[in-house]
Amino acid sequence: MNPKINFTPGPSQLYFTVKDHIRTAFREGVPSLSHRSKKFETYYQDTVEGLRELLQLPSGYHIYFTGSATEIWERLIQNLVAENSFHLVNGSFSKRFYEIAVQLGKKPIKNEVDNGHGFDASLSIPADIELIAVTHNETSTGVSLPLDFIYDLKVKNPNALLAVDAVSSLPYPDFDYTKLDSVFFSVQKGFGLPSGLGVWMANDKCLAKAENLLSKGISIGSYHTLPGLQSFAIKNQTPETPNVLSIYVLSKVIKDMIRRGISNIRKETEYKAALLYHTLQTHQVLKPFVVDPSFQSKTVIVANCGDQTERITKALLEKDMQPGDGYGPSKKTQLRFANFPTHSKEQFELLVDSLN
Amino acid sequence: MNPKINFTPGPSQLYFTVKDHIRTAFREGVPSLSHRSKKFETYYQDTVEGLRELLQLPSGYHIYFTGSATEIWERLIQNLVAENSFHLVNGSFSKRFYEIAVQLGKKPIKNEVDNGHGFDASLSIPADIELIAVTHNETSTGVSLPLDFIYDLKVKNPNALLAVDAVSSLPYPDFDYTKLDSVFFSVQKGFGLPSGLGVWMANDKCLAKAENLLSKGISIGSYHTLPGLQSFAIKNQTPETPNVLSIYVLSKVIKDMIRRGISNIRKETEYKAALLYHTLQTHQVLKPFVVDPSFQSKTVIVANCGDQTERITKALLEKDMQPGDGYGPSKKTQLRFANFPTHSKEQFELLVDSLN
Repeated sequence: MNPKINFTPGPSQLYFTVKDHIRTAFREGVPSLSHRSKKFETYYQDTVEGLRELLQLPSGYHIYFTGSATEIWERLIQNLVAENSFHLVNGSFSKRFYEIAVQLGKKPIKNEVDNGHGFDASLSIPADIELIAVTHNETSTGVSLPLDFIYDLKVKNPNALLAVDAVSSLPYPDFDYTKLDSVFFSVQKGFGLPSGLGVWMANDKCLAKAENLLSKGISIGSYHTLPGLQSFAIKNQTPETPNVLSIYVLSKVIKDMIRRGISNIRKETEYKAALLYHTLQTHQVLKPFVVDPSFQSKTVIVANCGDQTERITKALLEKDMQPGDGYGPSKKTQLRFANFPTHSKEQFELLVDSLN
Repeated sequence: MNPKINFTPGPSQLYFTVKDHIRTAFREGVPSLSHRSKKFETYYQDTVEGLRELLQLPSGYHIYFTGSATEIWERLIQNLVAENSFHLVNGSFSKRFYEIAVQLGKKPIKNEVDNGHGFDASLSIPADIELIAVTHNETSTGVSLPLDFIYDLKVKNPNALLAVDAVSSLPYPDFDYTKLDSVFFSVQKGFGLPSGLGVWMANDKCLAKAENLLSKGISIGSYHTLPGLQSFAIKNQTPETPNVLSIYVLSKVIKDMIRRGISNIRKETEYKAALLYHTLQTHQVLKPFVVDPSFQSKTVIVANCGDQTERITKALLEKDMQPGDGYGPSKKTQLRFANFPTHSKEQFELLVDSLN
């Protein structure tokens, strides 16, 4: 009925243990569990401690839950910006982050490059910028920014906070979180959960900034301010009734990933990416959309397919594989392939065999 | 392991068809379905059309999805208030709604009465109030406001918008929506779904007000403004990746409720409420917390249990029934019993037998 292997970049294929975890959740009464119960606090704590271990988060980092990563864009601007943020825009999602700052009445500045491209290392950022907003992995175009490039933004602009949208890259990137201030993702991509939960990691500097804005009489929102989230997080709770089931399943998937080993997940991600890029580079019809290898995403791989797009989609569907459409205007000429921890080496081998 | 019958007022017992719907959802690939797919649009449309039928929503009403009802408190203030809202406060949740307006930098006014009480019909509201915020059913105290009292607020204040928090009462109340402007709920109460979705109904006047604020240069938020939500709703889509699974399950539960008949659901709710209130009124130890029958909630029934609270909880748990704790400071002296469509007459009969 629906293809067995789902390569759409999000919502994507479920992590292969999710169905079992949801079955167990029903058995244990999780879907009707009170978010003020001890049991919920345990699941909350498991998720937070698991993420700390999986991603090697340093102390001084806090983890909060929201309804979506889109919500985190809004909360980041509300909580960390009085006047101006600086946005590196190279696709639809980094652009939307910028637009949210405009909608919230701030004065954001953007450095915009064409889709499919990264940024010049000489990029200059005004001295009074409060927040630098970077999209590590542009889901719309398959451009990933090198980690050193991102760290360098902080070195050159030590007074600004640095927020990294890692929606479609985590848990793959091996970030040095001491060089970043906030990183966030949503669960329906690399973690392979059903959609409906955003995960927001922020350090003490972010909390201090939000408190500073608040002390100046600037509204930083209501139930999802950083100080508000933190006041509940210390009790392993959320301000509102959250997506309890999703927090539970996330705690379990993180445990599964820790057991599997993050370095194995990273190595396999690189193997699968190399396999597909090699196929695209040597293919007669398909070509990688992102030409510069230093900007080629490992987790969302975009192929130019031209007028063969529909034919290739059909052929893959016949083999029970669902490719992702190109994003927006590229819908009819590109295909996107998610390369997430749930996608096995065998599935990628089958994909490249079918494409060849 | 966990009690079979869950009377906590939310998250509460699942609607009895939810587990099957989630099983079907997995079979149909719903948890990894793209929110930009035709299939998702169908589920969205089913939910909206089903709610229109179930609740007899008049034309000119629109339906939007958020992460929680807490989020809707914030969005209502952002979208409908330039300066001042008026809040009828009689418990923790109506108070929180008021506080959100304060946090957002508005100048809200409150009329506050003691917990367990309703409001005087002579209540007067200043002429320049933009939004009247009413909590139909105070989940913390079991006070429900009579519908005529709510409609009267609109008659006396025709220039203000009237928003009704029906979080823990819908689908029970038979609202005349032409006398209200916005009504909202969250799915983990009367609809019996896992938590993680808010449902916001708002009429054309709300949309016009939001657009008016926007035209005056007032920020009304970013991705979840009324005009923004509306621009996606007409395509049966959401601005962000929503809780797709929950929207799907809601569409199915609404269909189940339509099949069962809303008037049957209402009659059964009243029968079960009468049964429990009768028990409380004639009981030697337990007493209804809300004394005035015109304010006694049909859907969240609160009992004063004094120093017997712990003993009664234990006794009910032994019979596989989970009562809800009293809210906040009443945790040790009250119990709350949800009376939602999923709770059967037999379960309530068992409950009152056990209490007697």
